[in-house]
Amino acid sequence: MAKRKRQLSLSVFVQLYGTHAHAWRQPEVAAGGPPSLAEWARIVQQLERGKFDFAFFADFVGNGGDEVGDGRRPRGGGFEPLTLTAALATLTQHIGLVATVNTNFNDPYNLARRFASLDHISGGRIGWNIVSSLADGATKSFGVADPLDHGGRYERAGEFVEVANKLWDSWEDDAFDHPNKETGVFYDPASGHPVRHHGKHFNVDTLLDVARPIQGRPVFFQAGNSDTGREFAAQHAEVIYAAAQTIEEAKSFYADVKGRLAKYGREPDDLKVTPGLFFHIGETRQEAQEKYESFRDAVDLSGRRQIMGVDVTNYPLDGPLPENLPIPANGRGRFQQMVALARRENLSIRELILRFSTVQGHRTLVGTAKDIADEIEAWFVGEAADGFNLKPSLHPGSLDDFIDGVVPELQRRGIFRTEYEGVTLRDHLGLRRPPNQNLIEPSARVAAAG
Amino acid sequence: MAKRKRQLSLSVFVQLYGTHAHAWRQPEVAAGGPPSLAEWARIVQQLERGKFDFAFFADFVGNGGDEVGDGRRPRGGGFEPLTLTAALATLTQHIGLVATVNTNFNDPYNLARRFASLDHISGGRIGWNIVSSLADGATKSFGVADPLDHGGRYERAGEFVEVANKLWDSWEDDAFDHPNKETGVFYDPASGHPVRHHGKHFNVDTLLDVARPIQGRPVFFQAGNSDTGREFAAQHAEVIYAAAQTIEEAKSFYADVKGRLAKYGREPDDLKVTPGLFFHIGETRQEAQEKYESFRDAVDLSGRRQIMGVDVTNYPLDGPLPENLPIPANGRGRFQQMVALARRENLSIRELILRFSTVQGHRTLVGTAKDIADEIEAWFVGEAADGFNLKPSLHPGSLDDFIDGVVPELQRRGIFRTEYEGVTLRDHLGLRRPPNQNLIEPSARVAAAG
Repeated sequence: MAKRKRQLSLSVFVQLYGTHAHAWRQPEVAAGGPPSLAEWARIVQQLERGKFDFAFFADFVGNGGDEVGDGRRPRGGGFEPLTLTAALATLTQHIGLVATVNTNFNDPYNLARRFASLDHISGGRIGWNIVSSLADGATKSFGVADPLDHGGRYERAGEFVEVANKLWDSWEDDAFDHPNKETGVFYDPASGHPVRHHGKHFNVDTLLDVARPIQGRPVFFQAGNSDTGREFAAQHAEVIYAAAQTIEEAKSFYADVKGRLAKYGREPDDLKVTPGLFFHIGETRQEAQEKYESFRDAVDLSGRRQIMGVDVTNYPLDGPLPENLPIPANGRGRFQQMVALARRENLSIRELILRFSTVQGHRTLVGTAKDIADEIEAWFVGEAADGFNLKPSLHPGSLDDFIDGVVPELQRRGIFRTEYEGVTLRDHLGLRRPPNQNLIEPSARVAAAG
Repeated sequence: MAKRKRQLSLSVFVQLYGTHAHAWRQPEVAAGGPPSLAEWARIVQQLERGKFDFAFFADFVGNGGDEVGDGRRPRGGGFEPLTLTAALATLTQHIGLVATVNTNFNDPYNLARRFASLDHISGGRIGWNIVSSLADGATKSFGVADPLDHGGRYERAGEFVEVANKLWDSWEDDAFDHPNKETGVFYDPASGHPVRHHGKHFNVDTLLDVARPIQGRPVFFQAGNSDTGREFAAQHAEVIYAAAQTIEEAKSFYADVKGRLAKYGREPDDLKVTPGLFFHIGETRQEAQEKYESFRDAVDLSGRRQIMGVDVTNYPLDGPLPENLPIPANGRGRFQQMVALARRENLSIRELILRFSTVQGHRTLVGTAKDIADEIEAWFVGEAADGFNLKPSLHPGSLDDFIDGVVPELQRRGIFRTEYEGVTLRDHLGLRRPPNQNLIEPSARVAAAG
């Protein structure tokens, strides 16, 4: 495959509740409740109109635990990612669909099979956001008696991914495509390669009962920011979702993770870095600023307050971040980044919630379509990002502002597609299709494993 | 709800490989390979044209284990039931979709959530075929170190269903339907009822993060024929899939399972009995007989031979069933029934394979559309069955014969619908929607639990 010109990736981060927890009261958010399937279809079709690479479905399965909550923010009512993406795959033609699934609560055989099935259903447009976090609530939802620690969970996730890769490779690509009624041969037994995996966490002797995915395997996404998380990404991920407030911070992250790839026998292009991005777009900068302020003012700071899952309800809103807060189970890397920034800039809890809970540590751009295209281009050209994972409130207006304003600017500059050129999510991202490990010469396999 | 006139249920049993293992070489089976999503869509839309109640997706996850097989029958290449039914739900409007999921390899929180999501995606048309079998191959696929025995698996399945029921009831029906932007109240905390389950197999303290299913819970299907299986069905199932060769056998099964319901506080109508049925329909009886013989002759008895999973390759095809065969992990009740019949009627292995492997112990009807409608009506009126789970080879012809020939006969006799009258699968089957257990007076709850 000839090397493609580097191209910007645009995608959207969606919460299954349909809106960021703090934004549901905004007047533009249609009903305020979780979207119906028809509303989801409209949203992903809108992204397809914008030629986006993928919709990324976040998920925090079971994190609520047995707390009913105070009723002031979404606590339930969404869909589950694997079933939702299967349904949306039939209602779209081009866009990639990324489902978050946690390795702590699933079995490799079942999950590999579900993703293989999804990849066939979607014609090769599926990604897996690999998550191994374990919130207190989730230990209760799943009755986890003896929780693994941070390192142990990444270790298990690594072995999980290894087993899943073996399962997807257990049949050659076209094993079931040539049944021959004359001879009675449904498939050639030589096309099957039994998995015999005996590891620390999993023992699997089998072949998958779904054909090899169209993409070889789903595209792997990862979002960890800790050192362990970055190493996991360097070894396994093909897209890493990151948070950065400044271009310097982003460049440093970009160089760091790309620099870790070589020791796993991977090229820098094998991993795309796509930071999160909030935006408020106006015809003028003043209009954009007004939109931003209206968003900010709609954030509800009454009731229970938390920053990245850490409860801060009992501290004064305009006081400093207390010392010795517990480190959250989710996103410890990002949490430590946040604490450092809070100390450095002397931020109050109110400011921290706005910056880290409402927008989760991601950058917010406020300006005209041209302003925003300028910033995106600068980060892309400056190797601070390969693309952006946008975080709009999911009312049509905010996304239409981007699609009708920023996307044409980026297209004019020649860094974003005007039409989908390929078929699969790998095609959109310019990622290679992985070969079947069973068909690689053993010597090359050793080299590829680094 | 006024009691509805008893109505016949018609459904189809589908293998994920798209055809019964022995039938793929028939000339009418389109390509011979596993159906694509488009082909599946065509099949379920065809069933919807016939006003069928549901399509029942069988599944034998991981049963192949690490055996590549001889290549002479399907071994892989299908879809996975939860993702396939999610996709098909968007491509149909009325028909129920039943997914088989094994309780041994799934977690109650994840599975309850996936089924709730599916029920919302489909507008209330989902059923769960609850399976707890454990084939040798599956223990290898899932690395089951210490397999539960038959009784232990049913016990675990019972607790699994109990937990799932609690999870589906953890929010009241409309908990997330009335977000109020003015007051900032997304949901009323009083509508949440935390599950606090501490049992032998599961510990779950949580609320589900998906709204209560449209049907309250998916319709429960069960297929076990052993005494334990029948008792499980009497306690939990709403549709039981059964095998019977004669009307006397079927009446006896029907009376037996319906008779077990009262001790669980259930009415006879709360459980529908739908035996499997193969058929070959002709304009004349002779044409039907020719179709049957052509089907029978296409069955491939070379290569590895098995009867209900028990290998009989090394015994003479025209000799008797050997003594002391191992009892299979799947369907032991049906296996014992079969052994008894084989001894009684002195059947050869060849005959047994045709009767029990090819048609899995189910009845085969051969005749004109009127002949078949007569038989169906007799079984329905005679309380040998509430309906039939048809097992056609999935080429369009065989199903069209039934839809265009037998269905109008049954409609004329007033025992089958001419249009879908309700919306949900429960509506089609005439099953009540279960109330939320948290809203029943404690005294009534005790009574309902028997």
